[in-house]
Amino acid sequence: MHARVFVTLKPSVFDPQGKTIQEALHTLGYPGVQDVRQGKYFELDLDAPTAEAARALAAELADKLLANPVIESYRIEVTD
Amino acid sequence: MHARVFVTLKPSVFDPQGKTIQEALHTLGYPGVQDVRQGKYFELDLDAPTAEAARALAAELADKLLANPVIESYRIEVTD
Repeated sequence: MHARVFVTLKPSVFDPQGKTIQEALHTLGYPGVQDVRQGKYFELDLDAPTAEAARALAAELADKLLANPVIESYRIEVTD
Repeated sequence: MHARVFVTLKPSVFDPQGKTIQEALHTLGYPGVQDVRQGKYFELDLDAPTAEAARALAAELADKLLANPVIESYRIEVTD
């Protein structure tokens, strides 16, 4: 099974990297960019029998290694 | 409009960061992780009148700054 994990900073956490990208885009001539937040994206190939098992495994991996639950939240999508 | 941009290395490009994460997960006791690829994820708030305009703007931003088209590909999702 394939799982996609999207990790983003929690909304209350300041994202200086996103802010820098936003300012760079303004400098490049795109004033219509109102906000940018950068996150991480993981594509996982998992040896799991069902979509539910793959989702549970991906959540465990995100909790243990892929995300820092103190400042980050994550979202999981599972596909075949 | 909100746009999400997912940037990943092209399949033919070796991803040492993903490989390192995969090995770390094996060491942590998850042998069922067959492959990991890491990418970047951007959430953009765009000042665009329609979903089509937001998608076109996000693609332009991805081509110019967010992705390196030589080694990376990207995918865009637009929401309200």
